[in-house]
Amino acid sequence: MPRILSSVLSTTSASKPGEPVTIEGWVHRRRQLAAVTFIVVRDRSGFAQVVVTDPAVRDEVANLPEETVVRVTGTPAANEKAPGGVEIVDPTITALSEPSLPQPVELWRPKLNATLPTLLDHAALTWRHPTRQAVWRVAAAAMAGFRKHLDGRGFTEVTTPKLVDQSSESGANVFTLDYFGSPAYLAQSPQLYKQMLVGVFERVYEIGPVFRAEPHDTARHLAEYVSLDVEFGFIDDHRDVLELLRDVLAAVIDHIGDTAGDAVEALSIDLPVVPEQMPVLHFSDALELVGAAPDEPDLSPEHERTLGKWAKAEFDSDFLAVEGYPSAKRPFYTHPQPGDPRWTNSFDLLFRGLELVTGGQRLHNHSDYVAALADRGEDPTNYSSYLEAMAHGMPSHGGFAIGLERFVSRLLEADNIRYATLFPRDIHRVHP
Amino acid sequence: MPRILSSVLSTTSASKPGEPVTIEGWVHRRRQLAAVTFIVVRDRSGFAQVVVTDPAVRDEVANLPEETVVRVTGTPAANEKAPGGVEIVDPTITALSEPSLPQPVELWRPKLNATLPTLLDHAALTWRHPTRQAVWRVAAAAMAGFRKHLDGRGFTEVTTPKLVDQSSESGANVFTLDYFGSPAYLAQSPQLYKQMLVGVFERVYEIGPVFRAEPHDTARHLAEYVSLDVEFGFIDDHRDVLELLRDVLAAVIDHIGDTAGDAVEALSIDLPVVPEQMPVLHFSDALELVGAAPDEPDLSPEHERTLGKWAKAEFDSDFLAVEGYPSAKRPFYTHPQPGDPRWTNSFDLLFRGLELVTGGQRLHNHSDYVAALADRGEDPTNYSSYLEAMAHGMPSHGGFAIGLERFVSRLLEADNIRYATLFPRDIHRVHP
Repeated sequence: MPRILSSVLSTTSASKPGEPVTIEGWVHRRRQLAAVTFIVVRDRSGFAQVVVTDPAVRDEVANLPEETVVRVTGTPAANEKAPGGVEIVDPTITALSEPSLPQPVELWRPKLNATLPTLLDHAALTWRHPTRQAVWRVAAAAMAGFRKHLDGRGFTEVTTPKLVDQSSESGANVFTLDYFGSPAYLAQSPQLYKQMLVGVFERVYEIGPVFRAEPHDTARHLAEYVSLDVEFGFIDDHRDVLELLRDVLAAVIDHIGDTAGDAVEALSIDLPVVPEQMPVLHFSDALELVGAAPDEPDLSPEHERTLGKWAKAEFDSDFLAVEGYPSAKRPFYTHPQPGDPRWTNSFDLLFRGLELVTGGQRLHNHSDYVAALADRGEDPTNYSSYLEAMAHGMPSHGGFAIGLERFVSRLLEADNIRYATLFPRDIHRVHP
Repeated sequence: MPRILSSVLSTTSASKPGEPVTIEGWVHRRRQLAAVTFIVVRDRSGFAQVVVTDPAVRDEVANLPEETVVRVTGTPAANEKAPGGVEIVDPTITALSEPSLPQPVELWRPKLNATLPTLLDHAALTWRHPTRQAVWRVAAAAMAGFRKHLDGRGFTEVTTPKLVDQSSESGANVFTLDYFGSPAYLAQSPQLYKQMLVGVFERVYEIGPVFRAEPHDTARHLAEYVSLDVEFGFIDDHRDVLELLRDVLAAVIDHIGDTAGDAVEALSIDLPVVPEQMPVLHFSDALELVGAAPDEPDLSPEHERTLGKWAKAEFDSDFLAVEGYPSAKRPFYTHPQPGDPRWTNSFDLLFRGLELVTGGQRLHNHSDYVAALADRGEDPTNYSSYLEAMAHGMPSHGGFAIGLERFVSRLLEADNIRYATLFPRDIHRVHP
């Protein structure tokens, strides 16, 4: 008999009352009472309750602890307390996997009771917990929403190399590897490649891993994460980039609500409303607003929190863009602010007082690149292909990058980015 | 005046005849005749012809060689010889980028006249050529079609780590890197992770880079490529995997035809018809058919070509699945053929006589894994998390992996996989 999913049990049973059905999944919870055994079977769509009263079947089930994979054939019967209002009675039960070792964590508990190290050490198991699955379903919906929006706006998906002969932005925090006897590096971002590809496709995006040899053990940094990168040409300035970012975030959040609504509910996520127009504050005004010295080169986390509260009070917005970051704190390819090159046409987007996205306009004239590299004492021969692309006609362009795990962890309001990472990598962890 | 794309020039001009328009793009071709200069402007949607007769504007244009980025405002006028039947006359032309250096290749020629090394050395430029863009548009459509089909069948997109503490299949051809003072490796495939995640989501896919320290310089291997990976649970055997692969390939090819039809036409790609049922031949029968000894452990490229011709003649099929590959040539996780463990429940899919996809059923019982690793003399502690997932209830499962660049290069019938790779990596090349 073909398997049905638990999520269609009630409709199947309503259309063919009394006919037996087969479900397959994991023994999520088994309760052996005096005269009856209840089994909750978990499959990718949800849960089904199975009621066992036959003593012979109860004996079999006694050997099938939680997480055993089973096939259950039985008769659907109405029970308003069961998931979907239908349970399965008079079952035959077949084990499809070997009974498991004792669980390192109790996956059947509604709230997963595990420390972060336990959660991560046993990631392949702990992700089975419904609240963990829900986290990743939000992440998957975010990626899908991102692509869907950009596909609809003439963007081309690209895949750029992760093995590079030059670190993209600086020599710091880069992983070095032995590449057939010579050194090569893991790409810290697709920045230089996505810009070159603006010369080809005008509008590109990529979802892929990026690598940072981050030596600090913090709650918000990883050695490897998934970057949602966008770059596009023929812009006026960074405000066009911010406008696209607004639309992308709105589309992503809509898509999460539309396709992972159950997960949002299970996790009590308060999906933000993306304002029609992102409030924008210039960096110099932000310094003044938080009471910092006018020559401060960056905003501290405390400053960002203050600005987040201000945006909420002033604009009822969870988001605030701070534009004009000082040139000294931005990479060489950043476009200066016209008329005042102390500042740049770049921005950080704060979400609830925490930095979420960095973006901006890039230089696009070859001579500006040559000058910018010279200013920073960098050797232009290290950027030969990039400079060649700029020398052959590059439109004004800009873009941004969203860290997937950071974005999801902030939706969750999790206190550690690792909660939103399938198999996190950091200075202490490259396993599992 | 807001920019329009060249592709909508004719409809815009038809709806508002005589009204000026603005286009932006690259000077694809400039022809300076005695009394007139023709400019073909290329944008992401196609081409527009601009006719310059004003001597002052012609003088300006004389300083704008091919690949200069320009803004052109002028009046649309019917000309059946122009792209879309409309050209732009009486233009004002603004250069948006600096005039370029001399082109290393002539991008305006209908056929790109460049050797493979030149093509790759100047990749950021040569991808601008319409025939090169078309290749990548096919690749992007393949990725989108793959996701679209699997999203519709209850699959969850995952992203697995590329930094690993253990090579996934063997110690050969693995890149080693310095991970905060200890060795780590670049993932050769997401194999072990996608299997673990079947325990979580039942059905998963991933599109991401994989890394092979391939020491041979061949036309069909890369050191980094994009792998389209699928893994799913609750299967009967590898035939279920082959059936899904059939559906995925059919959907991918349909999606390429639907969304990149122009590219298919420009490249004269003969899109294959995927048969409703893939023809299948057992490995032992394949050996017999090609006249090889019955103890041959693998099929040679010559054998595969013979089998490809046979499938075409016998079934009028571009595809042939060869199942049952010998255990000795398959990884430890491969499920044996029931009743005859010399063979396996795995397959290679040949496309026009060349191997395109490898797939199969995996082991799913913990004790089978322990035995399989012991058989091969491998230390099970190297697979501790993977084995833990297997010990806690794993359904029967299987999957496959499609190499994106290989797939596209075979659609193109290109003689080198590098033609279908944005920035290829091999033993000689990690740049650009």
